[in-house]
Amino acid sequence: MSNLNIAVLGAGSWGTALALVLADNKHQVRLWTHTEAQADIINQTHTNQKYLPDTELPELIRAYSDMAEAVSSADMIVFAVPAKVTREVAEKVNTAAEKQAIVVHVSKGIEPDSHLRISEILEETLSADVMSDLVVLSGPSHAEEVVKRHPTTVTAASDQIEAAEKVQDAFMNQHFRVYTNTDVVGVEVGGALKNIIALAAGITDGLGYGDNAKAALITRGLAEIARLGTKMGANPLTFSGLTGVGDLIVTCTSVHSRNWRAGNMLGKGHKLEEVLSSMGMVVEGVRTTKAAYQLADKYNVSMPITSALYHVLFEGVHPKEAVDQLMARVKTHEMEDLVNILEDQDGKTGN
Amino acid sequence: MSNLNIAVLGAGSWGTALALVLADNKHQVRLWTHTEAQADIINQTHTNQKYLPDTELPELIRAYSDMAEAVSSADMIVFAVPAKVTREVAEKVNTAAEKQAIVVHVSKGIEPDSHLRISEILEETLSADVMSDLVVLSGPSHAEEVVKRHPTTVTAASDQIEAAEKVQDAFMNQHFRVYTNTDVVGVEVGGALKNIIALAAGITDGLGYGDNAKAALITRGLAEIARLGTKMGANPLTFSGLTGVGDLIVTCTSVHSRNWRAGNMLGKGHKLEEVLSSMGMVVEGVRTTKAAYQLADKYNVSMPITSALYHVLFEGVHPKEAVDQLMARVKTHEMEDLVNILEDQDGKTGN
Repeated sequence: MSNLNIAVLGAGSWGTALALVLADNKHQVRLWTHTEAQADIINQTHTNQKYLPDTELPELIRAYSDMAEAVSSADMIVFAVPAKVTREVAEKVNTAAEKQAIVVHVSKGIEPDSHLRISEILEETLSADVMSDLVVLSGPSHAEEVVKRHPTTVTAASDQIEAAEKVQDAFMNQHFRVYTNTDVVGVEVGGALKNIIALAAGITDGLGYGDNAKAALITRGLAEIARLGTKMGANPLTFSGLTGVGDLIVTCTSVHSRNWRAGNMLGKGHKLEEVLSSMGMVVEGVRTTKAAYQLADKYNVSMPITSALYHVLFEGVHPKEAVDQLMARVKTHEMEDLVNILEDQDGKTGN
Repeated sequence: MSNLNIAVLGAGSWGTALALVLADNKHQVRLWTHTEAQADIINQTHTNQKYLPDTELPELIRAYSDMAEAVSSADMIVFAVPAKVTREVAEKVNTAAEKQAIVVHVSKGIEPDSHLRISEILEETLSADVMSDLVVLSGPSHAEEVVKRHPTTVTAASDQIEAAEKVQDAFMNQHFRVYTNTDVVGVEVGGALKNIIALAAGITDGLGYGDNAKAALITRGLAEIARLGTKMGANPLTFSGLTGVGDLIVTCTSVHSRNWRAGNMLGKGHKLEEVLSSMGMVVEGVRTTKAAYQLADKYNVSMPITSALYHVLFEGVHPKEAVDQLMARVKTHEMEDLVNILEDQDGKTGN
């Protein structure tokens, strides 16, 4: 593995953790953040005080607030910014980059109204002079554990398997295992929609409903994610993998998950505005719920959990009422829910 | 729903919780336990002091240590005994029963050496005079939550869908939702083998490896369960349902799970004998690991987690060494693992 110049855009907890993995692998990492103050703090203290205060960052990480300094000589550019600023940051990169790079994104979300996945936004926005290939990196991976070098396993997906393999090479080490996959749609849809289920799981926990209820919710949630995903062109098998069930489990059952925490506060009776303002971090699942609710309608797919959560978040339905209705849904034969996943796949299982 | 006479065999935590669900539904429940002392305590105190000391049992539950008193007039007989005494208890039922009943079993395990599932043991042992139909009831359901009437969702599976529907009618209420399924093999294999993965998840937690590692393990574990299950004749979709991923999640992530707790102690350095003697309850996963290890060989299926756990439990391999080897396994393309699930299914997905 040769040493690369890699720009990581976004100094939140996940961008910072990935910068650390890359620096552990001896790559030169330029970590871009939109405020000069944050860049200065990172460079002076070698910590990210705001998001990962207890982690010492390797010397190979330098922070920048100037996009040109961050990306001009980059061999690889990693987008680790909140989904909703993807387009804006990509436009900055267009202006600042001086050579082609492999673009990696690690954001999870689907744009409401346009229904674009992150990779579609990047393809639409980034010029061909800037991006040679596009890879999505996703999987069950809390930043807080990655920076402790705890074992973590993720998937790098791209239409171009060679590009996914280059990303695999750059990130892979003893603690951070990277698998490749060619199903970009499945990886992105699984990553985005699990945040919806995590919000709902947080609500059931906040209501005090216990692990049995949560397991039922996660199971039904995985089925509805797979139903929508296959309609959107994903390989249904991807939802049984790290970026599907794996990421769903970790997001729904870990105290580190901000979507779960937001749901938990909702379940305990706090109002959405109050929850969002107290989090101090982006809660991607709120925005994704709106997009998925629209997509369920567009593709004519039954998504009862997404729908119930939409009513809670945007129409003032009480969480307890929504969850109790979900639990009481009349459906007696289990396969009715599951078979639909595979009905629409046009023989994709053998891919 | 008419009121039935139902015998529940086994007054462990799960048998007792199911007796409570049935009594809530106004059925006459005879709870059989093998010691007269336990029967007396239950009848005198209306609690199960040993397993669920804080739960008041409804008056409709009467405990018996005499099998004839428990089953002679039963319309339905529920086997809730540890897997390894299934055969012995079934033989007692043969002698004691005076009419045909629907038999339900809720045990999770596969017999080592014979490789029989619980339903196969019961079919082999119970006479036709005693058993009209056989139904397996399984799903993500900790007894401790069921007795608090927290929402719980399970599956009733039978070759005879009408029998599964009768069981659904008997157990279903506002808190306890029952779905039906016809895939007995898939429900039993998922229920049994998840205990192996729960033991392994307990080990990674005991080693302090965190949620990322556990999510990867659960994901890989689900894939290997599905690989073996489909070879044994299961519908692969069942593993995406309540008795597959649902039960797996709850068993691997809940503090209530005794298999997880046993694994956790192993991961912290305790010896197997020490762990088993300190639990005071049967740890089904230990016995099932041996059976699954043999089945993997018989069906020529790759089961790396089962195999690693077998080496830890029965051949003295250190847990950390086994887990680190699992994490470092060279497999780069995610679909290699997943596709195998569907390769052997002979078009079963559309069933």
